[in-house]
Formats: sequence, structure tokens, C-alpha cells
Amino acid sequence: MEKVAVIGAGLVGSLQAIYLARRGFQVEVFERRVDMRKDKISAGRSINLAISTRGWKALEVVEAEKTVREIVIPMYGRMMHDKNEKLHFQPYGKENEAIYSVSRGGLNCRLMDEAETYDNVKIHFSHECKDIDLENRSILFYDHNTQKEVEVKAARVFGTDGAFSAVRKRIQMTDRFNYEQMFLKHGYKELFIPAGEKNSYQIEKNALHIWPRGEYMLIALANEGGSFTSTLFFPFEGEPSFESIKTEKEIRDFFNEVFPDASKMMPTLEKLYFTNPTSSLVTIRCEPWHYEDWVVLMGDASHAIVPFYGQGMNAGFEDCRIFDEIYEQNQGEWQKVFQEYSKARHDDGNAIADLAIYNFIEMRDKVADEMFLLRKKIEKKISDKYPDQWMPLYSQVTFSHIPYAEALAAGKRQAKIMDKIMKREDIKTVWDSQEIENEILRLIAHA
Amino acid sequence: MEKVAVIGAGLVGSLQAIYLARRGFQVEVFERRVDMRKDKISAGRSINLAISTRGWKALEVVEAEKTVREIVIPMYGRMMHDKNEKLHFQPYGKENEAIYSVSRGGLNCRLMDEAETYDNVKIHFSHECKDIDLENRSILFYDHNTQKEVEVKAARVFGTDGAFSAVRKRIQMTDRFNYEQMFLKHGYKELFIPAGEKNSYQIEKNALHIWPRGEYMLIALANEGGSFTSTLFFPFEGEPSFESIKTEKEIRDFFNEVFPDASKMMPTLEKLYFTNPTSSLVTIRCEPWHYEDWVVLMGDASHAIVPFYGQGMNAGFEDCRIFDEIYEQNQGEWQKVFQEYSKARHDDGNAIADLAIYNFIEMRDKVADEMFLLRKKIEKKISDKYPDQWMPLYSQVTFSHIPYAEALAAGKRQAKIMDKIMKREDIKTVWDSQEIENEILRLIAHA
Repeated sequence: MEKVAVIGAGLVGSLQAIYLARRGFQVEVFERRVDMRKDKISAGRSINLAISTRGWKALEVVEAEKTVREIVIPMYGRMMHDKNEKLHFQPYGKENEAIYSVSRGGLNCRLMDEAETYDNVKIHFSHECKDIDLENRSILFYDHNTQKEVEVKAARVFGTDGAFSAVRKRIQMTDRFNYEQMFLKHGYKELFIPAGEKNSYQIEKNALHIWPRGEYMLIALANEGGSFTSTLFFPFEGEPSFESIKTEKEIRDFFNEVFPDASKMMPTLEKLYFTNPTSSLVTIRCEPWHYEDWVVLMGDASHAIVPFYGQGMNAGFEDCRIFDEIYEQNQGEWQKVFQEYSKARHDDGNAIADLAIYNFIEMRDKVADEMFLLRKKIEKKISDKYPDQWMPLYSQVTFSHIPYAEALAAGKRQAKIMDKIMKREDIKTVWDSQEIENEILRLIAHA
Repeated sequence: MEKVAVIGAGLVGSLQAIYLARRGFQVEVFERRVDMRKDKISAGRSINLAISTRGWKALEVVEAEKTVREIVIPMYGRMMHDKNEKLHFQPYGKENEAIYSVSRGGLNCRLMDEAETYDNVKIHFSHECKDIDLENRSILFYDHNTQKEVEVKAARVFGTDGAFSAVRKRIQMTDRFNYEQMFLKHGYKELFIPAGEKNSYQIEKNALHIWPRGEYMLIALANEGGSFTSTLFFPFEGEPSFESIKTEKEIRDFFNEVFPDASKMMPTLEKLYFTNPTSSLVTIRCEPWHYEDWVVLMGDASHAIVPFYGQGMNAGFEDCRIFDEIYEQNQGEWQKVFQEYSKARHDDGNAIADLAIYNFIEMRDKVADEMFLLRKKIEKKISDKYPDQWMPLYSQVTFSHIPYAEALAAGKRQAKIMDKIMKREDIKTVWDSQEIENEILRLIAHA
């Protein structure tokens, strides 16, 4: 069996190991951290994740979806909390269409378990990638257990070691490698809503909760057992910001004012705000995603995105599925497999990166805007009545397998149409009319 | 005297050492390479450079312009060579306005000589920066002479180590550092036109020669002694490209066809084409340009640009001058000096990066276009008659000290006006009329 190395046993690395195992390779997975199934450690970035259609499909192809279904909680829409503690529910898609909340750590453990059911997969923990010798095609690891360096040879190398990939850093030093890392001016901090009495959920379990407030927002996703993981997205600087709020009283007063219902459910707010880290949000783009026919980058290592479309992991899982399809079509021709994969996915990676940044503005700002909601209502009417002619952008991204770049392009065409429609001064009164419907159909036909 | 470290004794590092010496610091300069004044080595990227107004000003402030004047050749305009060996001259600016050709190596030697005239400047050659300890504020060098590592402490660190700066690489690993490296799909290769009889120049000495051919171009700048350094800018891939031309016969046939007059003057074309390296062209942007109050990046280390506006070195020299002004205003407050400098120069760095990429298209493509030339003619008429209302973009960048970002913004306003004017179907006949002049003045007033 040909030996291949997967560097990073996170979500994408574990899934890619499964795909490669099923293709008959001897898969050696190297993970910098200890085995999180034995030692309780942080699973890295800890925003709860949402699995959507692309993620499920990639799991289904390798029969890994069943074990994951056991630990997810469906969310059928956004539950908006306004400043007056009023709730507004917006479904994500059609009836029964949902995204599925899951903890990063729990999912990662399941996928590592699943990978290890294959005899030809071995995960080496505490192996930190120190260098990659592109000339001699060998990888240097530092084994934190033996405290020794280990040199590994492999026929192919899969860099699945995340946004700050050591594999990519080495490739970045080769000529004509395009690379960009761009941070948002906002950071995030994890907070917590404990379970109510008898492990009950204090707010709707099957929704993604959002407290949109313009320049910042709070969200909450349900965990098993009644609690919610909540995340504050907040500017690093300015007023208000992580910088400007300096005392326990200030954070509580601030929450009481802008997130009053959440504040009541957060007894540990002050403690968590001052002990949990403030994390940054980065978008990473690069090109090409491979080095010759030896190394290829997947998941965050090639396209780290901000979390606001819930697509980071789903895009990474889709990488594995698409790579496998391209491998199937070009077996043995590795250079071609890597080139085709890089070419096929690069524009999609850029598209979902753009969409994710845009959706931050939509989530924190527009979802509470009356005209934006009316716009969504008109779009929904058209897409319900003419599903072949109008699939909402959110559905294309979340509930379909349409390549992200195509979804983005279609979304832009739709946005142009809706911009025109919403410019009508009488739109609030005529939005449900046959005239508007006809006008939209006409614009679709000419788009 | 407070000790400061300058990392990199290239053009910007040498000039910055002079500025710092005059401010009374003990300046320790560390250069990876050997002393190019003693050992004949390549001075790195070897495209001939052009000093323009910003560069001269920065040299004048520290009285370093005199030694440089001795080794430059003025170029008063572009000399275009068409496929029929016809020549067309376009002046760069007003009479006597010129840019000045100089060899990178020659200029670098003069600036190092000049720096060493200060007792408080010491250049350490063969010192390669291996690591920067941001926590303990020390720099680790490898001394290639003694083959030992040397740890250096310095109150401030100036990273002037070029596009692939080791200093920046270390800062890049800190949180929220934005960074981009983007390569053009074109590369370049240096070629040569030898002197004619008795060290005569075979083509006009005091012009920058361009053979614009759409997707690619050849240029030539005069050296002392009658020869020209010529550079072919050519796509890496496609037809024709560095990839597609594979034999000595192919390159000579190609030159005979598209650069016939140049081909006749290049007896060593085949040899140089296959022995000289093919180099890539990168744009580098990052932010911020400093780390706390300890490290600051200058020149290519913070804003490497492509060479097509002839501004890379001039922008780097201007960095030194502006940094010195900000230092003057905020002496002792280093954090503020670094922040103000980074803030003041960042947008200008981005602007000249954009302008340089755009100018590649103009140089290789548009300068041979009839409508483009007419456009320039109209612009020249207006700027000659109303110099206060219209300074051509090229002049703003090359012959003024207007911040690059302002020049770019003004250039965009002008482009909008000229786009409107050039849309007139009768523009070829009426371009010189009072009507067009009035129309432009009206558009300027409303811009």
C-alpha cells in the first residue's frame, strides 16, 4: 500500500483520512496536540459549528454521517432577540430544512473514532510539523512524547492543519505563491447560558439565537443537556468595544442595556468575559493549493473564512468529497489530480470567504431592519411559487451543492433585481401584488 | 548614545542609517550579504532604477544627493519602438523634467560609503537575521564569517530587509497582522545591448526605451559607458511565454519578428535568455508596519511593488524622509512615532502598489494606442494652459511630493473626466477646440 501523510487530525484531516483509507492508502495522520479523547483539552476555536447539506453529503459518501447524527441538534431558523426582549423567528429554508448544531470537540472525536475503524489509518498524536523538505520530499516532526525529531517520508502529503498551517507556511516560501491573511476589526469571546431546571432549555432549542445590534452581536447555539454556547462578536477598538469595557460592572450594565434577556440568563457573564480569551477572526486565501504532485492543502489551511455563514467546516468537508471525485477520474495522475482540485476549488474558496464576510454585516445589522425583512419576504414568495427560477442565496449556500462561486454569482444577479424592486416608493403597499411578481419574473428572464 | 539596529543594508537601509546617524543614534546595520564594494556580487534584483523627485528630496535632506548625481543618467521621456523600427518620443513632463537612470549596485555602494562617513554608523556584513524575539526584544543573527550565532539587543529595530523580509516574517506571526503577497502572471529576464563603437550609445541615451507589444514588452535603460540594460517582461505561461520559447532559434526568430531593431543590437540574446534567471514580480502589502514601540518596517519590507512606475526605491526613500519628520515632531514617544508613520504611509504604500500594477498595462499596451496618445495630448494641453487645475497623474507621482494616495484619487477624478471627453464621436476632429477645453474646465469644477 502506498503511504500518504495527513498533517492535522482536526475535522477535515480526520475526514480526509477516511476518504484516503477507503481508496486503499496506508494513511499516517500526524496531530500536533494530544488525543483529545483521552485528555480533556480545548478543541481549538470553539464556536459551535453548524453542519449543513454540503457537510452531510461529504460524510454520507464515506458512511460517516450516522455516528454524527447522534450528537447534533437541528436549528430550523434564526431567532432574533430585540432590545425589548421580543422574539422574531425567521426560518432558514423550507419546512424541515435545518442546519445542525454540534460541538467542534464532540464531532472531532467521532470522526477520529470513525477513521480508526480502518486498519490502514494510524493517528500519531503529539507530532508537531517542524519543517517540510520540498526537495527531498520528507517531513520533519517533533514528537512531544519522546522529545525527539522524526523524519517521515510519504508519497503524498495532505495539509489539513488549519488556518495557521505549518504546511502552507513552507509552501508560501516557494516562488509565485499568492497568499493573503486579513483580519476583521471585530473579535469574539465565548460566553455561556446554563441549562434551566431539570436540564431544560431556557430559550428555544431548535433555533440559532441572534441579538443583532448593528456594529456588534451576540449569538447562542444549543448544546446537549440544556445549555447554550453563546458568542459575543464585538469590535476590538472604539466605543463600545473589547477595549472600552474594562470592569465587571461595565460589562453587566452593557448587557443589561443591549441584551437584557440574555443578561438575565448569564450568571457567569462577568467571570467569563474577563477570563475567556478574546479571539481574532481571519480570512486566508492562497493559490495554488498544491506543491507539484507532492503536497496539497485542504480545509482552513487553504481557505480559512470567518464563521458567519456557518460554512467553514462544510466547505472543508466538501473539499474532501470533491478531491475524491477528481481522484476517481484521474487515478495515478497525481499532478493532474492536484491541479484540477486546486483549480476547481479555488474560486469556490474565494466565493465562500466573501459570502462569510458579507453575512456578518447581514447578521449583526440587517436582520433587524424592516426593509430587509420585507425584501426577504418578497424573495420567499417568489421562490415558493417559482422554485426553479429563484433559489434564495442562503439556500444555495446552505441547502444545495451548487458550487459556491456559482451561488455567489447568482446571488449578485438576484440582489440587482431586488435592489430595483425595493427602490419603488410604494413597495410597502404593493409588495404582494401581481404587478411586482410579474416585474420580478421579467427581470429574471432578462438577467 | 541609544543603540538602534537597521536590518538590511540595501538602498533604504543605507539611507535610513544616515537619517538615524544624523539624529544622534548609535546605528548598527546588519546585512546578510558580503560587502558588495569588496566582493563582486549581484545586487539582488537588477532592473536598472530611476530616481525621481521624491528620491532626490529624501537624499537632499541628509546631503547625500551630491555623490549620487555623479552616477546617474537623465531620461527625459519614453522612446517607443514600434514593430516597423519607427521611433516615437513622449516627454515625461515639462522641459528639463527627467527621471534618472542608475544601477542598483552602484547606488547602493555610494549610500553605504556615505553612511560610513558617520562615526556612529557600523555596517556588519554577512550577518543573516535568523529570528527576532519579540518578548525579550533581542535579535538573533548568524554570522557567516565566524559561523556563529550572535544575539543583539537594540532599543529600536528598523526592518529594511526587502520584499522577503525576515523581520516581517516574524511580525506576521503576531495576531491581527494583515498580509498579502500577490505575484503577476508575468516574469522578467535581463538582457543586454552592448556599447557601439568607441563606447557610443547605439540608441538615444537620455530616454527610457520601450518596445510595447500588448501582453509583453521590452525596455532598455542606459548605463555609463555606452551599453544598455534591457529587460524583457513576458508571461510565464501561454503563447508566447517563457514556457513556450524553448530553443535559441525560437528566441532569435521571435525577437527578429517583434523587436527587430533591438534584436540587431543584441548579439548575446540567445546566451543571456537561457542563462539569466527568470524572475517573478510580486506586490506585498501589510498592516500595521510596526510592532509595538520596538520594530518598524520600511521600504520593500512593508510595501514591495512591481517596477512599472519606477517608484519602488523612491517610495522607500520617501519612507525615510517622512519617518524622520514624524520623529522630529514626536521625539521620545516611540510608540506614537511608529503608529503615526504606519498610519501616514500605509495608504500611500497601497496607492503606489495599485498605480505600479496599472502602469504595466499602460506601458506594454496603451502607449502604442492612437486614442490613448490623443488622450494624453488633450491632457497635456490642459495642464500646460491650466497647471493649477490639472497636473497629469504621472507628474504627480514622479515630479511632486503629493502623497501617493492623493495622487491616485486625483488621477481617478481625471480619468473620469477624460473618459467622458473621449466618448465623443467627433473627438479626433474637435480635440483642440475651445469647446472641449471649456467642457473639461466645467467637469473639473464639478469633480
